[in-house]
Amino acid sequence: MTTFKRIALFTRRKITPPIVDTLNTVHTFLCNHGVSVVWEEETAAALNLNEETVPASELGNKSDLVIIIGGDGSLLNAAQILVDQQVPILGINRGQLGFLADINPDNVTAKLNEILQGHYTEEQRFLLYADIRQDAHAPIVGYTALNEVALHAGHAAQLIEFEVYIDERFVYRQRSDGLIVSTPTGSTAYALSGGGPILHPGLECIVLVPMLPHTLTSRPIVVSSEFKVDIVITANVPGKPDVSWDGHNTYSLNPYDRITIRRHAQKLKLIHPGDYDYYQTLRSKLQWGSKLTSE
Amino acid sequence: MTTFKRIALFTRRKITPPIVDTLNTVHTFLCNHGVSVVWEEETAAALNLNEETVPASELGNKSDLVIIIGGDGSLLNAAQILVDQQVPILGINRGQLGFLADINPDNVTAKLNEILQGHYTEEQRFLLYADIRQDAHAPIVGYTALNEVALHAGHAAQLIEFEVYIDERFVYRQRSDGLIVSTPTGSTAYALSGGGPILHPGLECIVLVPMLPHTLTSRPIVVSSEFKVDIVITANVPGKPDVSWDGHNTYSLNPYDRITIRRHAQKLKLIHPGDYDYYQTLRSKLQWGSKLTSE
Amino acid sequence: MTTFKRIALFTRRKITPPIVDTLNTVHTFLCNHGVSVVWEEETAAALNLNEETVPASELGNKSDLVIIIGGDGSLLNAAQILVDQQVPILGINRGQLGFLADINPDNVTAKLNEILQGHYTEEQRFLLYADIRQDAHAPIVGYTALNEVALHAGHAAQLIEFEVYIDERFVYRQRSDGLIVSTPTGSTAYALSGGGPILHPGLECIVLVPMLPHTLTSRPIVVSSEFKVDIVITANVPGKPDVSWDGHNTYSLNPYDRITIRRHAQKLKLIHPGDYDYYQTLRSKLQWGSKLTSE
Amino acid sequence: MTTFKRIALFTRRKITPPIVDTLNTVHTFLCNHGVSVVWEEETAAALNLNEETVPASELGNKSDLVIIIGGDGSLLNAAQILVDQQVPILGINRGQLGFLADINPDNVTAKLNEILQGHYTEEQRFLLYADIRQDAHAPIVGYTALNEVALHAGHAAQLIEFEVYIDERFVYRQRSDGLIVSTPTGSTAYALSGGGPILHPGLECIVLVPMLPHTLTSRPIVVSSEFKVDIVITANVPGKPDVSWDGHNTYSLNPYDRITIRRHAQKLKLIHPGDYDYYQTLRSKLQWGSKLTSE
Repeated sequence: MTTFKRIALFTRRKITPPIVDTLNTVHTFLCNHGVSVVWEEETAAALNLNEETVPASELGNKSDLVIIIGGDGSLLNAAQILVDQQVPILGINRGQLGFLADINPDNVTAKLNEILQGHYTEEQRFLLYADIRQDAHAPIVGYTALNEVALHAGHAAQLIEFEVYIDERFVYRQRSDGLIVSTPTGSTAYALSGGGPILHPGLECIVLVPMLPHTLTSRPIVVSSEFKVDIVITANVPGKPDVSWDGHNTYSLNPYDRITIRRHAQKLKLIHPGDYDYYQTLRSKLQWGSKLTSE
Repeated sequence: MTTFKRIALFTRRKITPPIVDTLNTVHTFLCNHGVSVVWEEETAAALNLNEETVPASELGNKSDLVIIIGGDGSLLNAAQILVDQQVPILGINRGQLGFLADINPDNVTAKLNEILQGHYTEEQRFLLYADIRQDAHAPIVGYTALNEVALHAGHAAQLIEFEVYIDERFVYRQRSDGLIVSTPTGSTAYALSGGGPILHPGLECIVLVPMLPHTLTSRPIVVSSEFKVDIVITANVPGKPDVSWDGHNTYSLNPYDRITIRRHAQKLKLIHPGDYDYYQTLRSKLQWGSKLTSE
Repeated sequence: MTTFKRIALFTRRKITPPIVDTLNTVHTFLCNHGVSVVWEEETAAALNLNEETVPASELGNKSDLVIIIGGDGSLLNAAQILVDQQVPILGINRGQLGFLADINPDNVTAKLNEILQGHYTEEQRFLLYADIRQDAHAPIVGYTALNEVALHAGHAAQLIEFEVYIDERFVYRQRSDGLIVSTPTGSTAYALSGGGPILHPGLECIVLVPMLPHTLTSRPIVVSSEFKVDIVITANVPGKPDVSWDGHNTYSLNPYDRITIRRHAQKLKLIHPGDYDYYQTLRSKLQWGSKLTSE
Repeated sequence: MTTFKRIALFTRRKITPPIVDTLNTVHTFLCNHGVSVVWEEETAAALNLNEETVPASELGNKSDLVIIIGGDGSLLNAAQILVDQQVPILGINRGQLGFLADINPDNVTAKLNEILQGHYTEEQRFLLYADIRQDAHAPIVGYTALNEVALHAGHAAQLIEFEVYIDERFVYRQRSDGLIVSTPTGSTAYALSGGGPILHPGLECIVLVPMLPHTLTSRPIVVSSEFKVDIVITANVPGKPDVSWDGHNTYSLNPYDRITIRRHAQKLKLIHPGDYDYYQTLRSKLQWGSKLTSE
C-alpha cells in the first residue's frame, strides 16, 4: 500500500485541552517520522499557531490524508467538506470509542505507526445528497449527509403528514413525528434510536425509519441505495416539518415541498488501522456483553 | 340510575356538514324526548343559531350532561374545560369509532335512547396537571391533560437532555427526542406510537415513554398516578425543549426549568352506552383481527 | 417475452372446496386458450383425477410454468421442490392477498390472460441453504429456505446460548429465545413479527433478528447475502435448541453443533402479472391506511 | 422495627466456592452478633455440615428471616417455597447485582449490620397463581410464580393460537410464539426481553406481553392484578403450547385447555437494606448511563 507523505490535521472549532494534547502528540509523532504536517486553517487559528495553513476546502490538494481529532460529530462535519476532494480521512476519538473515529487517543502513536507502515484498510462509505424543490422548480437548497437525512415535526406537538415515493413509485402516506433516511454509516446513530436495524457498512442500501408513526404497522424498510427517495409534504395538517442533514443545516418546509434523496456521486475514503474489526466496535459500543440475568 | 333532564350540545369551532347533520339529529331526538337542550355559546355561533346560549365555562351549572360531537381531539379539548365543573360528558364520533367518542353517528338515536332510560355506565378518568417553574419560584404556567404531557425537542435535529425524578428520587438523565408522560386514557394515543404499553383505563397509573432515546436500554416505565414526576432541563446541550399538554398549549423551556406533573384533583366523568366494551374498542381500533399469515 | 405453452397445476395435499373451484377455473381457462395442462401427481390424486400426471420432482422438464394454488405456505413448500428445476412459478391465493401468491382468485382469468399475452414480470428471489455439522465432520442434514432459517428454544422456558460468526468473524454470543436469519422474501413473514425491518425483494441482503434477547441492546443486523453465517451452540446452558427451515424440517441440536447458512446457488423465478406493485402489496397486507387518530 | 433473632441460611443445590465463602462470612457474622443460625436441610447437606437442620417447608416456624445466597434464580425458587410461610427473605447475590438479590457480597457484613440494627425496609411483592383445567373440570396442576407465567410454542416453528379473557371478557384471539403474563417483579426479567414495560414494584398491576405476534398491532397491555386472566387454547392450529411458571414446572397443553391466572393470596416479604433505591438498581442493571453518542 502507499503510505502517506503529507498529512493534514483538522479538528472542530471549539477546542478542548484533551484535543490539544492529542494534536500535540500526533504532530510530534508525524514530525519525528518525516511526514509533512499540513494545518487546516481554523484548527491552527484555534491553537493560536503561527504556521502556514490551508483552508478546509483545499486540503485534498495539499495532503494525502486528513486526520480528524474529535468525536463522530467532528468527523461528520469534516466528511461533508472533504468527500468531494477525495482525500482519505482518519478519525481519532477524544474520549470513548466512536463508530467512525475508531482510534483511541491512548494508543494513537502505535496505531499511526502501523498506518505509516502500510498496515491499514481503506473503506468506502457512501453519502446521501438531498435537495428541496418547490413545485417543479429548481432546487432551493441541497447538502450531503454521511449519516442521515431526517424529516421532523418543526414544532412540538405538531402532527406532520407526507408521502414517500421510491423511484417514482408511491410507497405510503404517513402521519408521524418524522422520517429518518439513513445510510449504513448512520444506521448505528439516530436511526438506531428510532428502532431501525443495523446495516453492515459495506451494503449499498438505505433504510427509511418512521418516527412515532400513527399507523402501528409502519416498519423500517431497507432498499437499494441506487433508488431515489422523494418525500412530498401534504397540505392536510397544519404542521410545518423541518429537514436536517446529519443533524445540521436545518431547513423549514411548506406544503407541496419535495425532498429528493439520492446517493451522492463521490464516496468517503475512511482509513482504519490494520486490526479494525467492525463487529468488535458494535460489541463495544452497544455493550453486547451485558445481560439481564445475573448468571 | 338518574337520567338526564338538561343536556348541553358542544362541538369544535371548525364545524363540518356531517357534524351539523349529527347535531340536528341529536337536537331533534332530545326535543322529542322532553329533554331541555342547552347550546354551548360557540357551538350555537358556528351554526348561526338565534337561541339562548351558555358559555363553555358555565355548562356544569346549566346542564347535567354535555354531549360532544367530533373526534377524540374535540373531546380532549372539552375535557380540559369541563373537568372541574364535574358534569358528565358523552362523545359522539363524526366518523370512525374513537377511543373516547365511542358512539357511532349511524346509531346515535338508539344509543341516546338507551342512555335516557338509564342504561349507561359512568367511568372516571383522571387527568394530569403539569406546571413549569424557573428556579424555585412560583409556577409560570400550568394546564391539565387528559392524554399526555410531552417534552419534545423544540427544533428538528436538536438534541435535548433532561433529568427525571419520581417523588423526589432521581430516575435517570436522558438524551433523546423527548418524553411522553401518559395517563391510561392517553396510552392508546401518542404514547402508543412511541412504543408504550396499553394501560387499562381503570388503572391509577401513568407511563413514561422515552422518544428515540440515545441509551438503547431505555424502556417505558409504569408508576402509580399518586407519584409526582419532575423533569428538569439540563444545560449540557444547546437544544431548547418544548412542553405540550394533549398536543396543545406548547411552552418553550430553558435550562434549569422544571416541569412538575401530578394527578389532577378532579376526575372526568365519561358516559358510555350500556353495551360499552373496552376490549371491543381496542380490537376494532387496533384491528387485532388482521394477521400476517393469509391462512 | 416468451409465453407459456405447457403449464403445470400444483396445490397442497389438504385440498379444500375453494381450491377445487379455482383449479377448475384455471384448468378450463388454460384448455380454452390452447395451453397444455400438466397435472402434478399429488394434486391430481387429491382431486381423484384419472389423468396423466407428473411427479413434483419432474415438473421442470415437463412444463414451462408451474401455477401454485394455495396460500404463501403452499408456495414456500413448492419453492423448495422447484427451485433447482429452474421452472418459473406463479401463485394464486385462495383467500386474501398473499405476499408471494399475489393473484386474487376473483380475477384469476383476467390475470392469466395478461400473462399468456406476455404482460408479466419475472422476479428472481434467492433462497438460503442451511446445513448442520457436529464437530468438523460432514453435514448431517441440510435444506433450502425461501423465507428464513430459525433457531428456537427447543422447549418452553429453556434458555439457549449460541455464538454467531459472519464470514468467520465473531459477531456475538447471545442468550435469547432464538434467532431468525431471513431473506428479503421472509422479511415480511416471521422476521417481521420478531421486530425485523422490511427488506426490498431486490436486495442481496439477509437480516439476523434476535428473539427476546437477554441483552437489551441487541438489534436486527442486515448483511450481504454473499456472507456466510455460522451459528454455534454453546455448552453453558442446559437448553437444546431446534432449527427449522421455513417453519418445517425441524432438527434438534446439541452443544457444539454448527449451523452454516449460505445463499443457495439457484434462484426462484417468480412470475407476477403486469400491474404488480410491491409497495401496493405492502400497503394492503400491512394495512398502512389505518391510523390511530380518527381524523 | 423488630430485629431478627433467628435467621435461616438457604442456597441452591448446586453450590459453588464463592457461595461457600459468602455463607461462611454470613454465618460467622451472625454468630458474633448473637443471632441463632438455622440451617436449611439441603443447604447444610451441600456443605457436608453436621448441624441440626430444618426442611425448607418449615423455615417459617423456625426462623424470623431467611437469607438466600445466590442469584435472582435462587430467590425465585425460594419464593415459591416460602411465600405461604410468611417469613421475610433477604437476597445476597453471588456476583453482579440482581434485581431481587440486591446485597453485594463485597459489603455483606456492613449491610447485615444495618439490618440487625433495624435499618431496613420490608417490601411486599405479590405472586401469581396459575392452574390448568381441561373442560370444566377441577384443576390438574397449579403453581405460584413471582416473575411470570408464560405460554410458549411447545416446539420450534409451531404456530400456536389461543384466546385471552380478562375477568370473563374476551380480549383477543392471538397467533404468536407465546404470551408472558408478568408481575411488576417479573417486568425487569423475561417480559422486558419481550418488549414489555417496566412496572414499578409497588403497583398492583400485571402486564400481558405477546411474543412475536402475527398481528403487528398487538401491544403489551397492563391491567389490575385483581383481574383474573384466562387463556384458552384453540383447535385451529396443530401446535401444542407449553406453560411455565418462573421458567420452571413446564406443562404441555392440549386444545381447549384453560390456564387461569390470579393474584396469589399471600405476598412475599422482601427485606432491603436501609439505603435501597429501586431506580439505582434499574440504572445499574440496565446501564442507563451508556449513550450512543461519544461526545
